[in-house]
Amino acid sequence: MTDVLLINPNTTASITDLVLKTAKSFARPDTKLRALTGSFGPRYIASRAAYAIAGHAALDALANDKGPKDAVVLACFGDPGLAALKEVSPVPVVGMADASILQACAMGNRFSIVTGGERWQSMLEEFVASRGLSLRLASVRTVAPTGADIARNPKAAMALLAKGCTACVREDGADVVILGGAGLAGLAAKLKTMVDAPLLDGVACAISMAEGLARQKPIKASSGALARPAPVPSINLSKDLAKLLG
Amino acid sequence: MTDVLLINPNTTASITDLVLKTAKSFARPDTKLRALTGSFGPRYIASRAAYAIAGHAALDALANDKGPKDAVVLACFGDPGLAALKEVSPVPVVGMADASILQACAMGNRFSIVTGGERWQSMLEEFVASRGLSLRLASVRTVAPTGADIARNPKAAMALLAKGCTACVREDGADVVILGGAGLAGLAAKLKTMVDAPLLDGVACAISMAEGLARQKPIKASSGALARPAPVPSINLSKDLAKLLG
Amino acid sequence: MTDVLLINPNTTASITDLVLKTAKSFARPDTKLRALTGSFGPRYIASRAAYAIAGHAALDALANDKGPKDAVVLACFGDPGLAALKEVSPVPVVGMADASILQACAMGNRFSIVTGGERWQSMLEEFVASRGLSLRLASVRTVAPTGADIARNPKAAMALLAKGCTACVREDGADVVILGGAGLAGLAAKLKTMVDAPLLDGVACAISMAEGLARQKPIKASSGALARPAPVPSINLSKDLAKLLG
Amino acid sequence: MTDVLLINPNTTASITDLVLKTAKSFARPDTKLRALTGSFGPRYIASRAAYAIAGHAALDALANDKGPKDAVVLACFGDPGLAALKEVSPVPVVGMADASILQACAMGNRFSIVTGGERWQSMLEEFVASRGLSLRLASVRTVAPTGADIARNPKAAMALLAKGCTACVREDGADVVILGGAGLAGLAAKLKTMVDAPLLDGVACAISMAEGLARQKPIKASSGALARPAPVPSINLSKDLAKLLG
Amino acid sequence: MTDVLLINPNTTASITDLVLKTAKSFARPDTKLRALTGSFGPRYIASRAAYAIAGHAALDALANDKGPKDAVVLACFGDPGLAALKEVSPVPVVGMADASILQACAMGNRFSIVTGGERWQSMLEEFVASRGLSLRLASVRTVAPTGADIARNPKAAMALLAKGCTACVREDGADVVILGGAGLAGLAAKLKTMVDAPLLDGVACAISMAEGLARQKPIKASSGALARPAPVPSINLSKDLAKLLG
Amino acid sequence: MTDVLLINPNTTASITDLVLKTAKSFARPDTKLRALTGSFGPRYIASRAAYAIAGHAALDALANDKGPKDAVVLACFGDPGLAALKEVSPVPVVGMADASILQACAMGNRFSIVTGGERWQSMLEEFVASRGLSLRLASVRTVAPTGADIARNPKAAMALLAKGCTACVREDGADVVILGGAGLAGLAAKLKTMVDAPLLDGVACAISMAEGLARQKPIKASSGALARPAPVPSINLSKDLAKLLG
Repeated sequence: MTDVLLINPNTTASITDLVLKTAKSFARPDTKLRALTGSFGPRYIASRAAYAIAGHAALDALANDKGPKDAVVLACFGDPGLAALKEVSPVPVVGMADASILQACAMGNRFSIVTGGERWQSMLEEFVASRGLSLRLASVRTVAPTGADIARNPKAAMALLAKGCTACVREDGADVVILGGAGLAGLAAKLKTMVDAPLLDGVACAISMAEGLARQKPIKASSGALARPAPVPSINLSKDLAKLLG
Repeated sequence: MTDVLLINPNTTASITDLVLKTAKSFARPDTKLRALTGSFGPRYIASRAAYAIAGHAALDALANDKGPKDAVVLACFGDPGLAALKEVSPVPVVGMADASILQACAMGNRFSIVTGGERWQSMLEEFVASRGLSLRLASVRTVAPTGADIARNPKAAMALLAKGCTACVREDGADVVILGGAGLAGLAAKLKTMVDAPLLDGVACAISMAEGLARQKPIKASSGALARPAPVPSINLSKDLAKLLG
Repeated sequence: MTDVLLINPNTTASITDLVLKTAKSFARPDTKLRALTGSFGPRYIASRAAYAIAGHAALDALANDKGPKDAVVLACFGDPGLAALKEVSPVPVVGMADASILQACAMGNRFSIVTGGERWQSMLEEFVASRGLSLRLASVRTVAPTGADIARNPKAAMALLAKGCTACVREDGADVVILGGAGLAGLAAKLKTMVDAPLLDGVACAISMAEGLARQKPIKASSGALARPAPVPSINLSKDLAKLLG
Repeated sequence: MTDVLLINPNTTASITDLVLKTAKSFARPDTKLRALTGSFGPRYIASRAAYAIAGHAALDALANDKGPKDAVVLACFGDPGLAALKEVSPVPVVGMADASILQACAMGNRFSIVTGGERWQSMLEEFVASRGLSLRLASVRTVAPTGADIARNPKAAMALLAKGCTACVREDGADVVILGGAGLAGLAAKLKTMVDAPLLDGVACAISMAEGLARQKPIKASSGALARPAPVPSINLSKDLAKLLG
Repeated sequence: MTDVLLINPNTTASITDLVLKTAKSFARPDTKLRALTGSFGPRYIASRAAYAIAGHAALDALANDKGPKDAVVLACFGDPGLAALKEVSPVPVVGMADASILQACAMGNRFSIVTGGERWQSMLEEFVASRGLSLRLASVRTVAPTGADIARNPKAAMALLAKGCTACVREDGADVVILGGAGLAGLAAKLKTMVDAPLLDGVACAISMAEGLARQKPIKASSGALARPAPVPSINLSKDLAKLLG
Repeated sequence: MTDVLLINPNTTASITDLVLKTAKSFARPDTKLRALTGSFGPRYIASRAAYAIAGHAALDALANDKGPKDAVVLACFGDPGLAALKEVSPVPVVGMADASILQACAMGNRFSIVTGGERWQSMLEEFVASRGLSLRLASVRTVAPTGADIARNPKAAMALLAKGCTACVREDGADVVILGGAGLAGLAAKLKTMVDAPLLDGVACAISMAEGLARQKPIKASSGALARPAPVPSINLSKDLAKLLG
């Protein structure tokens, strides 16, 4: 049995539910999934300001969790706080955007990302660059509704998303397209007949990457960038987060 | 139920058996695995010349296979023929080296590879570069015995491999180390207590990446680099390969 | 008259004082400086976990400030929350690490960074990479004491720091060396006779870069990545930060 | 006297004849040229699948050749098997695409490639990337007829090719354009008055690069990536290739 | 008091006057500025041939200057001779293009350059590449009049320049736009209300970067690439330049 | 018959003679060679300051030449003024360093350069970077004597150079080593038995690259970066250079 914890670092529980439901549909039969929602911060994350807060919220959520886990999925496409979680977590932590772009690279040479919320275009271009994968990125295309809008009314967004995916393939040269964003969980399967290249679902990518790492039961690093950092005192944090740091 | 076909493009059936056995230990309960061995070419692949032949052999093996499959794993660490297989296969094809370096990137920022056979150092450095991931590569270190030697006598190689992995972490700055090579299948688990950073097993990475893609049932591209190429006549190939091309 | 606000995102006021004092010694005669300290989070920042919290704290500090400002300096060498501050601030925001590596690039072809706290080595290597300047980076070298330790007892660290700087020049090929870290503010001037290449002070670089941008009085972007993002509701944030986002 | 062997790794002898004839028109007076055709595989190479087979066929052709040689030209624009040939050959081996892009780099800062066969666009983009020269590549443009079609009826393709070359210069910013593909051998000279930037002929580039290296009579490496690899047993290969490997 | 010497390496004194006047409007109250004009070479620099001569002229100007200086600004946007000046100058030397692109990088993630003279497009793209910053460059756009034309009649160029800047932001994705070129000195301030992203003035950037470095009083390197080179005899140079080299 | 003009941009005629003699030994039987020496500037080029002057001197030499030419070789390893010469020359211009690194790339994957004069290490590293080939560069190693010293007494330098070449292969991973520098012309052939990887001679590479381009008789670009620039008035230049520019 493998326990996987999903952390949604925004503060909208219905998005958490959607991600959890989608994750369950792709998970191994022997995987047990749980999910947490951020306890402070923006309702959804579609700016660098919201992103900065979400990194703290994700870390706080992990600090406050006492349940069993063999891997953690950071379930916001853009992965706020990913490096921080990896540092303090004893088990592998997988970011949803990170897992998706890596799985897309396993599928084809050049990938695109389609998501909701205009500001994510430059944010995801910078994210991909920070992972050293700019030369593999065909494009990021956003549709005007945010991920939260799409989650509330996915049918309305279907045509827009299909059009965006097709432009990625025909105009930008993508071999494979990722439907990114927690709010878009599960839509790749529904759009697949409308696009002439393979589509990947961000949640599906994250869950299988987490399962794959968890199955190998890698040790926690005892030195280097993934090792537990030296303790540091802090003020005005949640009790559990202060304890995690100190 | 997910059917995964493993193709070992060298011509040593005992290596195929080892890979298959290791793959089974990491696979989902609902995955069914089969494996094929190359029908011509070198007994093991440890040079660019052998590699060039193995790309043809891998393609030939796929052409000759009539069984059910939802994904294919190219089970030689270095992935000869990977792009060719992707082009003609209706289902996702995952290379063992490719999947491993991508899964290592999901785990940490910088990875190293340890494998057997000296010539693989430059071959794998070039492979990583061709995937656009040179800046994530901490190092490739090889031990003198080839993968085939190690498969025959893994215990003799344990100390050498542990030493190589430790040097990757302490001297080269790797956050995570891949034990690459079909002949090293299963050794990561046995070495893990001897190294102070997480180790990944090439076979485990490949199988979970293939399962993850297969679960999403992506369509076959109908245009672009992953689409089926235009037919071309050929001479002096196996009947099934000629048919696949023509 | 130019007003520059310094934000120290850790929670140690004595570090803020040191940075402010050093900044004053380098500032234009017609610059007026103020400084803020983070109101929650770690006492000093020497890990990715602390860094994730500091991004939120920096944003919160800016949201709570009502004073006049023509530019903002984010006074933690590593720049947590920099992109978020740029998004919401009507005036230019300069990160101390960012300004320093750019000013070092104006001085010479290849630069090194010397700072305190071992974890910063990989964190700063990744920071430089995220700015696209890896090929200009000769090395990052850290000394064992953290920036906070050095601030408390700078004399004890002088020999260690001089040795690190000299190794950057002689072994790593640096043309210029940055003394990074709020805790090292002002030390470059004291070390200059001990190293045979130019040294730059992180605080001095940040203040002159901020003054240079402020003097040009650039407009706030009304579109693109630097524009004010769309408002978003939030929960459990400071009143001023919630207002800034919403 | 310098002996140069041309290897055409596809199985169409008339293409070999065309390449040989073009090569002779550019060669030094003291160069003696011979040419071989692949003995198995596709009639022409316009997909990754055909390419994988051609690497084996090129190696097989070299193994079976007993004639004198001071250099080898791999006469398929895309260079299947190039690294393998370099490993086993005692004399320099030059790929036609590789030589062309390098000679184009000697001529101008940014180059384009025009060739026949749509799939070559992404294949050549990846080839250029694998050589580390992506930043020098202005574009790859393909015309619909394959290289084999163009070889059969070059006049029909002239206007299409001139249009492609002109687009490379005016739209893509190329300083110099390579007419690539064995089937296009000799056409650069005929098109030169129709384009306002210099054109290079792939065959001409390859032959002069091979002559240049042969004239220097470099030694065969005795260590490293270009050295003869350790022998390996094999099955079901041509007798001479097995002998070359074993 | 800080002394800054401006060197205009073309031979048009009125351009020197314009740059000096603009520099004074941005400089610190405690900075004293002087300016020199090249004594041989082209009247303006808008080609690689002119650029090659200007590098010599800039070096000659520095060699012939006997005045006090704490920093030098090379006041031609493109920086001919920059590395040479750095080598021989005992004080920091700042190039106008170099300072501008670095200051633009401090402001936003991606920058564009707008200038006069068509040939500067490729020249500046190559300049940015040589600084390792190609991935930060959104675009270079040129307007048909040269910098010298614009200096003579700036009003006529305003609409053209505003249009170019706007295209950089809306079509090319620039976060910030540099008005480059000595002939455009001072125009950024006049154009700022016509563009919806921040504009930077090349002269303002250069002067503040030079002041910032001068204030730190860095030592002259005694080893490495910025150190004084070994003396070398020469012929037919100006007496002072020969003395500087010999 | 092909006419090739060699331009030595330093002012030492004996170096010109050595380059010309070496070039003749590698040239085609139907090539006719001439050589010019710079008329002003340093006796040899081993600093960025000397390099800046040499770019002007090379351009001046070309402007003053009235003889027939089908290609030009810029015979200083480092290629001062190369882009300027390409702009104004009606026939191809090849730089000695540029041709050598490109020919080395045709030979193997990673190359090193060995030359005389310490300052050339960083100068050549930057040169290679400016050509986009840093990832192919294994190392630049310099020996203490300058190229001019070696030309005067080559025997004394043989052991030093052989040692440097061997270190490139064994320690730095070079597949091929370039003996760079006009003063080292002809030494590669003499050192070849002392190193276990192929050596290339800078002069031989340049001459065959120039011949290869000349044989193709490419047109002069009528647009873009290689086209003749717009005329510009100038002062205090040689009459012929002023005429070339104006």
